[in-house]
Amino acid sequence: MADANGAGRGHRRNERMKFASDNWAGASSRVREAIITASEGFATAYGLDATTAALVDRLGQLFEREVAVFLVPTGTAANALSLGALCPPYGSVLAHEEAHVIGDEFGAPEFFTQGARLVGIAGISGKLTPDAVAATLQRLAASGPRTAVPATLSITQATECGTVYGPAEVAALASLAKGAGLAVHMDGARFANAVAALGCTPAETTWRAGVDILSFGGSKNGALMAEAVVVFDKARADGVDWRRRRGGHVLSKARLISSQFTALVTDGHWLELAGHANAMAARLAAGLAAAGHRIPWPTQANEVFPILPRSVVARLKAAGADFYEWPSASLAPSDQPAADEMMVRLVASFATTPAEVERFLEIAG
Amino acid sequence: MADANGAGRGHRRNERMKFASDNWAGASSRVREAIITASEGFATAYGLDATTAALVDRLGQLFEREVAVFLVPTGTAANALSLGALCPPYGSVLAHEEAHVIGDEFGAPEFFTQGARLVGIAGISGKLTPDAVAATLQRLAASGPRTAVPATLSITQATECGTVYGPAEVAALASLAKGAGLAVHMDGARFANAVAALGCTPAETTWRAGVDILSFGGSKNGALMAEAVVVFDKARADGVDWRRRRGGHVLSKARLISSQFTALVTDGHWLELAGHANAMAARLAAGLAAAGHRIPWPTQANEVFPILPRSVVARLKAAGADFYEWPSASLAPSDQPAADEMMVRLVASFATTPAEVERFLEIAG
Amino acid sequence: MADANGAGRGHRRNERMKFASDNWAGASSRVREAIITASEGFATAYGLDATTAALVDRLGQLFEREVAVFLVPTGTAANALSLGALCPPYGSVLAHEEAHVIGDEFGAPEFFTQGARLVGIAGISGKLTPDAVAATLQRLAASGPRTAVPATLSITQATECGTVYGPAEVAALASLAKGAGLAVHMDGARFANAVAALGCTPAETTWRAGVDILSFGGSKNGALMAEAVVVFDKARADGVDWRRRRGGHVLSKARLISSQFTALVTDGHWLELAGHANAMAARLAAGLAAAGHRIPWPTQANEVFPILPRSVVARLKAAGADFYEWPSASLAPSDQPAADEMMVRLVASFATTPAEVERFLEIAG
Amino acid sequence: MADANGAGRGHRRNERMKFASDNWAGASSRVREAIITASEGFATAYGLDATTAALVDRLGQLFEREVAVFLVPTGTAANALSLGALCPPYGSVLAHEEAHVIGDEFGAPEFFTQGARLVGIAGISGKLTPDAVAATLQRLAASGPRTAVPATLSITQATECGTVYGPAEVAALASLAKGAGLAVHMDGARFANAVAALGCTPAETTWRAGVDILSFGGSKNGALMAEAVVVFDKARADGVDWRRRRGGHVLSKARLISSQFTALVTDGHWLELAGHANAMAARLAAGLAAAGHRIPWPTQANEVFPILPRSVVARLKAAGADFYEWPSASLAPSDQPAADEMMVRLVASFATTPAEVERFLEIAG
Repeated sequence: MADANGAGRGHRRNERMKFASDNWAGASSRVREAIITASEGFATAYGLDATTAALVDRLGQLFEREVAVFLVPTGTAANALSLGALCPPYGSVLAHEEAHVIGDEFGAPEFFTQGARLVGIAGISGKLTPDAVAATLQRLAASGPRTAVPATLSITQATECGTVYGPAEVAALASLAKGAGLAVHMDGARFANAVAALGCTPAETTWRAGVDILSFGGSKNGALMAEAVVVFDKARADGVDWRRRRGGHVLSKARLISSQFTALVTDGHWLELAGHANAMAARLAAGLAAAGHRIPWPTQANEVFPILPRSVVARLKAAGADFYEWPSASLAPSDQPAADEMMVRLVASFATTPAEVERFLEIAG
Repeated sequence: MADANGAGRGHRRNERMKFASDNWAGASSRVREAIITASEGFATAYGLDATTAALVDRLGQLFEREVAVFLVPTGTAANALSLGALCPPYGSVLAHEEAHVIGDEFGAPEFFTQGARLVGIAGISGKLTPDAVAATLQRLAASGPRTAVPATLSITQATECGTVYGPAEVAALASLAKGAGLAVHMDGARFANAVAALGCTPAETTWRAGVDILSFGGSKNGALMAEAVVVFDKARADGVDWRRRRGGHVLSKARLISSQFTALVTDGHWLELAGHANAMAARLAAGLAAAGHRIPWPTQANEVFPILPRSVVARLKAAGADFYEWPSASLAPSDQPAADEMMVRLVASFATTPAEVERFLEIAG
Repeated sequence: MADANGAGRGHRRNERMKFASDNWAGASSRVREAIITASEGFATAYGLDATTAALVDRLGQLFEREVAVFLVPTGTAANALSLGALCPPYGSVLAHEEAHVIGDEFGAPEFFTQGARLVGIAGISGKLTPDAVAATLQRLAASGPRTAVPATLSITQATECGTVYGPAEVAALASLAKGAGLAVHMDGARFANAVAALGCTPAETTWRAGVDILSFGGSKNGALMAEAVVVFDKARADGVDWRRRRGGHVLSKARLISSQFTALVTDGHWLELAGHANAMAARLAAGLAAAGHRIPWPTQANEVFPILPRSVVARLKAAGADFYEWPSASLAPSDQPAADEMMVRLVASFATTPAEVERFLEIAG
Repeated sequence: MADANGAGRGHRRNERMKFASDNWAGASSRVREAIITASEGFATAYGLDATTAALVDRLGQLFEREVAVFLVPTGTAANALSLGALCPPYGSVLAHEEAHVIGDEFGAPEFFTQGARLVGIAGISGKLTPDAVAATLQRLAASGPRTAVPATLSITQATECGTVYGPAEVAALASLAKGAGLAVHMDGARFANAVAALGCTPAETTWRAGVDILSFGGSKNGALMAEAVVVFDKARADGVDWRRRRGGHVLSKARLISSQFTALVTDGHWLELAGHANAMAARLAAGLAAAGHRIPWPTQANEVFPILPRSVVARLKAAGADFYEWPSASLAPSDQPAADEMMVRLVASFATTPAEVERFLEIAG
């Protein structure tokens, strides 16, 4: 991580301002070293190597229970395999309407479930509420057995809006889902940011709260490629296993993933990286708020969603800042941007430097 | 690559003898360096980065024509996506009965084609012949439109038996297939070994011979993970593209694959690595033949399939050699192993050392 | 059709009141005779018989153009095969949120499209409007190529609310869809009722208005089983054909369907039956309105959706009337039933008698 | 059934000779009457009518146990739904290489299993033997978990060659299958002919012998459309149910099928019809044998497979006889037709008359 100490204004003028996505960043130095070490010598193929076996043990310790672990190359694969194992072809998956599984995965959930239906649920700040889930369940129950049967609830942690569910919130949603016969999936592409923000244990916000399968992401948190399907309900493991094979997601040299994941979960590296990203986002949020910009929901993880005047956006872009405009569907009507405003998304990563944050704030200010 | 010079008998006694598979080997030093370089700094996600774009250009030069390239994490994904784009759900894929797509990919071809049928064709030494393909086409044509319509021919180059098709052989098969309305896929998990063995250009044994899509493998040839679907028939590219997205095979940090592939195809590194593996296999074959062991078909790439007395196999295993017994379905009846014999597969890789070859021969001798 | 002449109050007291669904009625006498005639003697199997060939010609005349016709046993099969041929696996089908394909077909569209997504669009009285479709297209376009690509518009004619699109309304929707690259499907489970109501030709409300494939239903209109996929865009016919085979929808004795369909389309029998059903519904609507009951949208085909006091509903049920309560999602907020009211659906069929209508009105009055 | 008494040579000269297929015949008079009766009046839709409920009870009595019954419109649907419920997507279905599910159903089994693999097994006279099944299981087991896992054995009763398995033969195959973890399906498109030939109870050759699901066909035996999936292993019923819905195979007016099936199983009508067809085939076989024609395997049901001189075939065709040439793959090498011979298939049905048999024999003689 760069040191901004003593970086004068002149220095900052040349700072990159990379806030487009945390998957634009590279790998942490520990992850890089782990890849190199792992790439030497011979190892049994297809995940039967020692590095992978040790990682599974390590994740069992992290989650304080036995888990089945399936390493995969992408977060989309992790989600789609999980949903395939949890939702039958005639079922439906309930998720927030802005969830990645609905809006960004090009039908991978439909492909791996063999045609299940995704049902989007609205919710302020990217979060599902028990009331909204219950209302959806009631509406779908009215169709009786004539159409897609609700089978799975997918919770995104941290959400697409950079907010975080507390363990009690996860438990409330999972309890409601379980009571209606649904299985529970957690999309944890930014699980590290959530855990770092909550200060809870990984167990508390997953299986102890009722989650059956977790998509545990590392690629947005300092790895080049490190995604795992972590199965708490062992009866579901086979359903992930065979879909992973049929999906072509079994790496011949699995140590490429397991070495990266091992580096992340060793000595709390994953939480250190995520904590840094969260802190950078918090600094961004604080600075923008201090400058009078609206931020419609709390910045709880590594993403900030300010509403900025279009003139400020233009000034930032001109200065070379990378970030995206963001749809404002998760905003309450009263919070919508005015005509000369725009909601944008700023994503901090393990590689974000205080200097680039300061430069951004200076220009936005 | 290890230097066996001066390695005395004592030294060799401790040599590993790793002939189980070329995907047990790690990464070449150039590939490792490429990963490290690529893992620094920011890059646009999902394959829109500069490294990936440059690789596509580079592969166009290698194949002497414009190509569409889709990087994927596994050879199974490359094959399944290719077949999905070439074979409709109601179609059938013809391939050698020992082809990887039939025997080792756990239904991935069926999954990505949405239910096409795989039709195995027998053939000595792992090779399809025009006669055998023609006979199969004739048999299937007799069923008329009542069952799976032949739609794709898949040729494995080098074959599962370590043999290689000359460009004229590929052209004869492809011409027959095209004449019957079939598309042509080449499974090139060991394409480098084939090209190194043939001394031809990559173009000569692919699109110039009638191949529509190539699964171009690097993971068995010194990369940790480097597979590409190379599409020559541009009309087929979209069919690969959307299946890759739905399959969850679009890496967010594509540079992880493209950097490795770039290292391979720069300055002929891929052919140097494959040539070394081929040479090690040739040395093994020559030594075993000199010791009086039968090798029922020519060793043309990096795999040797000797028929060994069971006592010799036991001696080698006791000394720590890694290799697999191999089914002998591709043997002519007159070549089948006797009761006290066994056919085995020895795979050499970029990392195979002359010393381990010598030690193996000494023990087998 | 029963004659209510002279049916006194005493007689009507025993009248059935069958308004649950038009698919509870049996077959018209002409259809029954056609089945009997067709069930004698030998005929080539799998639709290659003379009855089926003649029907295809007959439908060509009816639609004033060459058509490809695929007979199937259910309306769900007709819809699902049509959507399969019109929408790729990565695509989405836009339809009214109360459309049968979304709410009542248990995932058949997802199954035959191999995982496409259904997108429901709200609309008063069960009808899609160009504005609502345009808004949905705009919203989906914003996701770019990250999720299900809009590929097909499905229009239900007559709608689930018993309303009917005029040819100009169909043309406006189809033109909008075509302009955005979507194909157009019409679910005509009650196509006869729509054509009878409109007094237009079948061509005017289908291909001349831009429809590519029609699900043409006869089972709700006096046949026991008569559904046809009528393909106007011949390039789409193959896509229906192979899905029909794979779906197990090719009857060995196709004359069972073709004989019924032939009876319907001979001498305008289909419009006579549908016209009667429409007239019965109109009489119901007029009588209910005269009695002061609200009917929130016009009764244009054979279904009436009155909002009745719960006390009236109870009285009707007690008297033996068959009908269903109906969800009121298609109602404008200002039209919603009060707490002591309920919206119900009354379906008239070819077999509905004036006597049962009168008895219903008398009790409801 | 026609009466040939007194039919002189002159009369027979004009006899049809319809031996192409039993699905070219129409409906028996009892079946016709049943359709007419059932087509009157109102009945609850989607199989919840009284006729259907009574049929399920009736089939329970016929099979001497509780069964789950799913009526479907085609034999292909019955087979595909059964296999879908018995074989996972990653599994394989073992069947005789000439089985209808492999050679004639256009991929319906692959579609409803979502991509399972069909494995054909050779066998004289269309029959599977325990030895051949065991050898196939052994070969597939050798691939371990790398490819399609054997999951289901499908037995055709009567076979495609008109032979029949005795209850002990079915039990031997089923026991072998069960021992290896496979479920057992019986394709009974001509189940009536088998039971009539065996003189056993329906239970003896199905669930008592180890069959889990039976495709029970009536369409080839005097019905226009009557196929049922009969599930003995109740745990499998749900898997048929939801696939039937998604497949679009739930008729709105189910009484159309249930009335026909009821007519068949009432007072032994089904066995009477099948017995007649079997007797006509036996008469054909006896006559051809007496005339010196080879019939390579026993005529046990309603199909005869003589090897005829091509000159005789030509004479029969010229006289208007309908029948098909048949592939001779199920013949032992020593039984293959000579160059001037041809194997043909003659199918008798409920509607075959003694007169047409005699005329055929006269011309063939």
